[in-house]
Amino acid sequence: MSCDPVLRIDDTGHIRVLVEEAGVFRPEEVDVACELASDALSGDPSYRFLLWRGESGAVDAYSCYGEIPITDGRFDLYWIVVSPRLQGQGIGAQLLRETESAIRTLGGGHVYAETSGLPNYTPARRFYEASGFTEAARLSDFYREGDDKIIYRKLLAQA
Amino acid sequence: MSCDPVLRIDDTGHIRVLVEEAGVFRPEEVDVACELASDALSGDPSYRFLLWRGESGAVDAYSCYGEIPITDGRFDLYWIVVSPRLQGQGIGAQLLRETESAIRTLGGGHVYAETSGLPNYTPARRFYEASGFTEAARLSDFYREGDDKIIYRKLLAQA
Repeated sequence: MSCDPVLRIDDTGHIRVLVEEAGVFRPEEVDVACELASDALSGDPSYRFLLWRGESGAVDAYSCYGEIPITDGRFDLYWIVVSPRLQGQGIGAQLLRETESAIRTLGGGHVYAETSGLPNYTPARRFYEASGFTEAARLSDFYREGDDKIIYRKLLAQA
Repeated sequence: MSCDPVLRIDDTGHIRVLVEEAGVFRPEEVDVACELASDALSGDPSYRFLLWRGESGAVDAYSCYGEIPITDGRFDLYWIVVSPRLQGQGIGAQLLRETESAIRTLGGGHVYAETSGLPNYTPARRFYEASGFTEAARLSDFYREGDDKIIYRKLLAQA
């Protein structure tokens, strides 16, 4: 099974549920996730999606990525989310492989991902580290006191 | 003289000229500067402006700043630009003081500014360092090979 690069208008609702179900994101983060989908549906090329659909067509996992403005082939992996019901099956790893492949096709060589240093984001950090990302920078108290931002980077192997 | 917080529709053209005259920004960066002004004029609260106007009302210097989404009172100083004709008169420092004051009024305590590590951005880095910003992180080859991103941060004193 491969991921669907075509976002549909009724995916936004699934994306909201999926991000809420993940259980770690604040309400304003959930809103941001939905806004990126709306922007993509409006034709904004800054945000691209890969969607993992269940049999009903509903989105069970997705990634959102895009080229970082004013850079030369640097991409940001804004979101990668898998439904809690489907975790532990390697879907996140496959979604990431397909996202990296899409980024390479677009001429991208460096991928950035940002996450929090808080304990409830430990699974996210482990996922990035197990997937070949390394910590490029850490900004202390970035989100709020005691909540650091960690910037991960992965250099993609050329095809 | 204090800065004008009200962006007008005909300021976008002045902003384009100002950013082009600065001589360090790439064409795509000039476009981004103008897009932020257009977004602000469309009512997007993410981008706020302070404008230093000459006698004719034309913009001779400006700052663009805004709260960083999903943070608690962290602000980004997206742009601060002074016309080359007016540099060396302390206008940048006054503009920055007024911007910091506006950020404090909005409840902000941390200000971030990003710039390039390339030699032609040395005046920008010196300006930030002389103004109390310190280097919080450096991302090597961020913009392109050999062109690092430097992330500066300033903690504002509480009024």
